[in-house]
Amino acid sequence: MAKIKLSSISTNAPKKLDKDKVKAATREILEELDELQNLLYAQHKYSVLLIVQGMDASGKDGVIKNVTGTLNPQGVTVYSFKAPTKDESDHDFLWRVHKQAPAKGMIQVFNRSHYEDILIQRVHKWIDDKTAAKRMNAINDFEKLLAVHNNTQIIKCYLHVSHEAQQQRLVERTEDPRKMWKYNEQDIEESKLWDKYMDAYEDAINNCNYIPWLIVPADQNWYKEYLVALTLRDTLKALNMKYPRLKK
Amino acid sequence: MAKIKLSSISTNAPKKLDKDKVKAATREILEELDELQNLLYAQHKYSVLLIVQGMDASGKDGVIKNVTGTLNPQGVTVYSFKAPTKDESDHDFLWRVHKQAPAKGMIQVFNRSHYEDILIQRVHKWIDDKTAAKRMNAINDFEKLLAVHNNTQIIKCYLHVSHEAQQQRLVERTEDPRKMWKYNEQDIEESKLWDKYMDAYEDAINNCNYIPWLIVPADQNWYKEYLVALTLRDTLKALNMKYPRLKK
Repeated sequence: MAKIKLSSISTNAPKKLDKDKVKAATREILEELDELQNLLYAQHKYSVLLIVQGMDASGKDGVIKNVTGTLNPQGVTVYSFKAPTKDESDHDFLWRVHKQAPAKGMIQVFNRSHYEDILIQRVHKWIDDKTAAKRMNAINDFEKLLAVHNNTQIIKCYLHVSHEAQQQRLVERTEDPRKMWKYNEQDIEESKLWDKYMDAYEDAINNCNYIPWLIVPADQNWYKEYLVALTLRDTLKALNMKYPRLKK
Repeated sequence: MAKIKLSSISTNAPKKLDKDKVKAATREILEELDELQNLLYAQHKYSVLLIVQGMDASGKDGVIKNVTGTLNPQGVTVYSFKAPTKDESDHDFLWRVHKQAPAKGMIQVFNRSHYEDILIQRVHKWIDDKTAAKRMNAINDFEKLLAVHNNTQIIKCYLHVSHEAQQQRLVERTEDPRKMWKYNEQDIEESKLWDKYMDAYEDAINNCNYIPWLIVPADQNWYKEYLVALTLRDTLKALNMKYPRLKK
């Protein structure tokens, strides 16, 4: 498999696409998702894990809200990973993640994930390359466990923004009163480490590919939401789910 | 590595051993364990997972009581695995197990474990051989995760009793008022599946050997307790633990 080089992938929606038409298509997909989610819940055989990764201001919160916000909340949960607690640090890095794996019938969304353990931790040299390599193997084993032993459909999205778009959005957070709550001084510092983050992401995407990644051009929200919704819809559709028959 | 054949391994203590001397040696080991556990807890770097497996009446409860009962309970916990709950069954078979992995500094004892998922489940044909093979791979990956990513020292004990000793103990449970609470009709039925269980155990022991097994001749309690205590002592001793220096 050819190595993925992020700098050679556009962060923009394809030029030929019409924004309004794409938005209309997304609305239709979301309606289809409603029925598919109901089937998933009723059949109680498969589950979905939607992992959303991306740099600060790449639009993780927005895509989660707009793609999963119309689903029945009884069948979808979002878990946001923060810095590990003391208790979490006292266990292997996947301990807290495994706990949050989806039950049959459920859609679980990860806002950030175990990938942070080979991204931020690597960029800041809290772990060395050897440990990172071991973690990547462990991540492949872990995702295989969920996929093989609980029929979990894993969708891994990398929200691919340009450094320019990110910086612009970070500035907006200092100016727009509705966005100020998201502003965090630390984000500016992290943004300076852009190239190191891209290297770490590339390694994660190329090595943790037991489940392949979806690279989502993320400079335009309408395209990003369309692509994630479409992938979720296609993944569910491919399962050929059926409502269980009446048990007599 | 040569395959382990359980029928060729004695379930008895070596003839040359003197029971009283061995019991005295065990008492000394337990005293040493006291200090080693304190070091483990204080250094907060390693953890121990002691997995106790064996047929009904092989003496799991007794060995746990007599080997870990003198330790400081603040640093040791015992988790007994029962039939999976509905919520547990809705996840992969290692989900409930991973939750119980030991934190740094702790000794966690498993009374039964994830191995039941390739023992009772296989003997009763609730899973086929192909699924069992996949689970064995997943178990190796899982134990590797704990060992590599959290310095967990895993000790896996198979309490090796003879069918005759087991049957005698099951009969005692119907006669001794202090043991009647342990009697379970189902145990008699399971005991009839002895050969199938031995095959499943042999497969588990031979295939799940990323961490090798300790086969514990278990017809005599004094020898079984000595061997498990000795192994726990040697495992802890080999870590060359040190008390942390004063942080200034």
